[in-house]
Amino acid sequence: MWDKLFERLASAVVRDGLLVMHMPDGSTRRFGNGVGPSAEMTVHDPDLLRRIVRNPDLGLGEGYMDRAYSLRDDDVAGFLALLMVNVGKGRGEAWRFPISRLQRVLGRLEQIAPAHRSRQNVAHHYDLSGDLYRLFLDADQQYSCAYFRSPDDTLEQAQAQKKAHIAGKLLLQPGMRVLDIGCGWGGMALTLARDYGARVLGVTLSEEQHAVATARVAEAGLSDRVEIRLQDYRKVNGQFDRIVSVGMFEHVGLPHYGEYFSKVRDLLPPDGVALIHTIGRTLPPGRTSPWITKYIFPGGYVPALSEVTPVIESVGLIPTDIEIWRLHYAETLLHWRRRFEANIARVRTLYDDRFCRMWRYYLAASEMTFRHNGQCVFQFQLARDQRAVPLTRDYLYRGNAIG
Amino acid sequence: MWDKLFERLASAVVRDGLLVMHMPDGSTRRFGNGVGPSAEMTVHDPDLLRRIVRNPDLGLGEGYMDRAYSLRDDDVAGFLALLMVNVGKGRGEAWRFPISRLQRVLGRLEQIAPAHRSRQNVAHHYDLSGDLYRLFLDADQQYSCAYFRSPDDTLEQAQAQKKAHIAGKLLLQPGMRVLDIGCGWGGMALTLARDYGARVLGVTLSEEQHAVATARVAEAGLSDRVEIRLQDYRKVNGQFDRIVSVGMFEHVGLPHYGEYFSKVRDLLPPDGVALIHTIGRTLPPGRTSPWITKYIFPGGYVPALSEVTPVIESVGLIPTDIEIWRLHYAETLLHWRRRFEANIARVRTLYDDRFCRMWRYYLAASEMTFRHNGQCVFQFQLARDQRAVPLTRDYLYRGNAIG
Repeated sequence: MWDKLFERLASAVVRDGLLVMHMPDGSTRRFGNGVGPSAEMTVHDPDLLRRIVRNPDLGLGEGYMDRAYSLRDDDVAGFLALLMVNVGKGRGEAWRFPISRLQRVLGRLEQIAPAHRSRQNVAHHYDLSGDLYRLFLDADQQYSCAYFRSPDDTLEQAQAQKKAHIAGKLLLQPGMRVLDIGCGWGGMALTLARDYGARVLGVTLSEEQHAVATARVAEAGLSDRVEIRLQDYRKVNGQFDRIVSVGMFEHVGLPHYGEYFSKVRDLLPPDGVALIHTIGRTLPPGRTSPWITKYIFPGGYVPALSEVTPVIESVGLIPTDIEIWRLHYAETLLHWRRRFEANIARVRTLYDDRFCRMWRYYLAASEMTFRHNGQCVFQFQLARDQRAVPLTRDYLYRGNAIG
Repeated sequence: MWDKLFERLASAVVRDGLLVMHMPDGSTRRFGNGVGPSAEMTVHDPDLLRRIVRNPDLGLGEGYMDRAYSLRDDDVAGFLALLMVNVGKGRGEAWRFPISRLQRVLGRLEQIAPAHRSRQNVAHHYDLSGDLYRLFLDADQQYSCAYFRSPDDTLEQAQAQKKAHIAGKLLLQPGMRVLDIGCGWGGMALTLARDYGARVLGVTLSEEQHAVATARVAEAGLSDRVEIRLQDYRKVNGQFDRIVSVGMFEHVGLPHYGEYFSKVRDLLPPDGVALIHTIGRTLPPGRTSPWITKYIFPGGYVPALSEVTPVIESVGLIPTDIEIWRLHYAETLLHWRRRFEANIARVRTLYDDRFCRMWRYYLAASEMTFRHNGQCVFQFQLARDQRAVPLTRDYLYRGNAIG
């Protein structure tokens, strides 16, 4: 039965490109029209087909981690590109529909988590060895989408441009008080303090990030202007001229959006400005990959615009600009993946084979979701007063003719 | 009873500023704290209070048209500024809540109109004497929000900048086929053909606009590149590299959004780009002013972002940029109102006193809604493929350092 169901699923999904499968019984099957990306898969575990049919996303991800199948040249990126190109065109949707409906409901329930779960969720990912992140991120450890003004930009350039672009949207003046919600390893806080004269409070729930960021602040001699706290953003009080939050909203979860934006509003003075940078989707709302939420980001949720806009309206914030970055994260992830593979020997000294395969799959799957399956980045610039931001966006692009 | 209810309503709404009211019985009442805008009103018709209590928006608008009250210096703009400053801060909302809920439901029902109603609705406004529009618009007759890159821009400059900004977002190449949905008096179509080498089909449901635009095309010697049709956009077939629609979406009505965006998607090739420019609101969804829909734009509806984003997602279009113009329309309307008042003697040769007061009220109320009560302009740049638009918005601002 699973064999037949798998055949139907694979035929429904893989139409463009070519998937060659070598089965445990010695047979070979082919799916697709042969035009486009191709991949060759050898199935080792006969139970794999059942696992894929029951939950394609989880079955494929775990199957790769467990070596239930292998890929020609171990090209997991090419394999996932082949799948995402087809899924991105809506293939197999009729087949997936009943399952994905149920998964969406379950996904919602999972996200109604008590507050203490946030810290566990964060620890799961961000308290991994700092060495791991240093082996694929840039030197500033920007663990969010870079901004490629030219396709030839290095990752370092693109990450610096990301911070500069966000700083531009924050309309900073020296001495302004800035809150950085989810400050990571402190790169944004350091830049805003050093290059823009801001006084920054950065909050994170990751002990590893808190320790690293605090050390970096001291090393940079900016302890008088930057404070890093191990604190839930909901516990922050006071007023901040500017609020920035990069790559943290993905962890908030749909049931908490109201709480999140209410807190942002409450922390802003009447002429305040906030910039929320988050992964999003241009597709209608759907469940975030079960494999990603199980292994990479527990509690994570990738919102559609239609899930964010009603909440922004309801708390009385004014969206003064909504930028939609497409493909920047695909390019960022490609850079990360190349660095990760270049350093794979050193990663193996930190983690076992299953973890290494998990991480490779994570980077490749994320890249291909941005490249082919409706994922993007939203930058919401928000204000309480429409006069807090200039009438045109010219101020963001002033150096253009020179730069 | 009406007197007491009016007292409660006025006290709940007018907190900032000062409203002095001279009542028919000779008494004088004062509302507000005296800080901010002020207005002085003399009530002539004792029934006015009842009309305002039952439907504040309609009662005030019709009362002004009917001279049921008069204002010091006939300063309707100042009077409406006083009201909108307070309404924009949520004053009187508890009082208005039950009524506004009912009005929203009624508003939805009104908009489920058969297709032939569209033409009647358009005729109501756009088939007014072309002379009227010439007495307050710029020479190019741009009847939509201008784009002020500097507060000192003339209306002519700001309208030219609006067209250039939109042309930039359309990423035009000479020879491209462009559809202009709701082409008005043809100014955009002429500009795109003359300055960008586009081949343009403009459609309008207004006979007056169709006649004027067609004559302008012939006069400009562009009949080989611009066609103006008296046609419903839903009847247009074929494919267009670019679609532009400025100030037309306001007339579509919420129940027809799916039809509208589906049509836009169907008319675009895979690498096509559309730019939809519409009045919107940064507040949660609400009913468009009953006075405006009764006297100015029957069938009109001002959307919140949360009403548009789910539809864009559901038809499979990708929002590649969402710009939110604040205050530009307030400035545009101020220009229009000044020109209208400067030409009021000539308007009076075309229309009676009640029409002139209606138009003055319309321009002033619209301006103050943009200035103080959550109205804005949305520009949705939409594509079918995320690669149809450059990765950054730099291309829109290239001339900045020079310009």
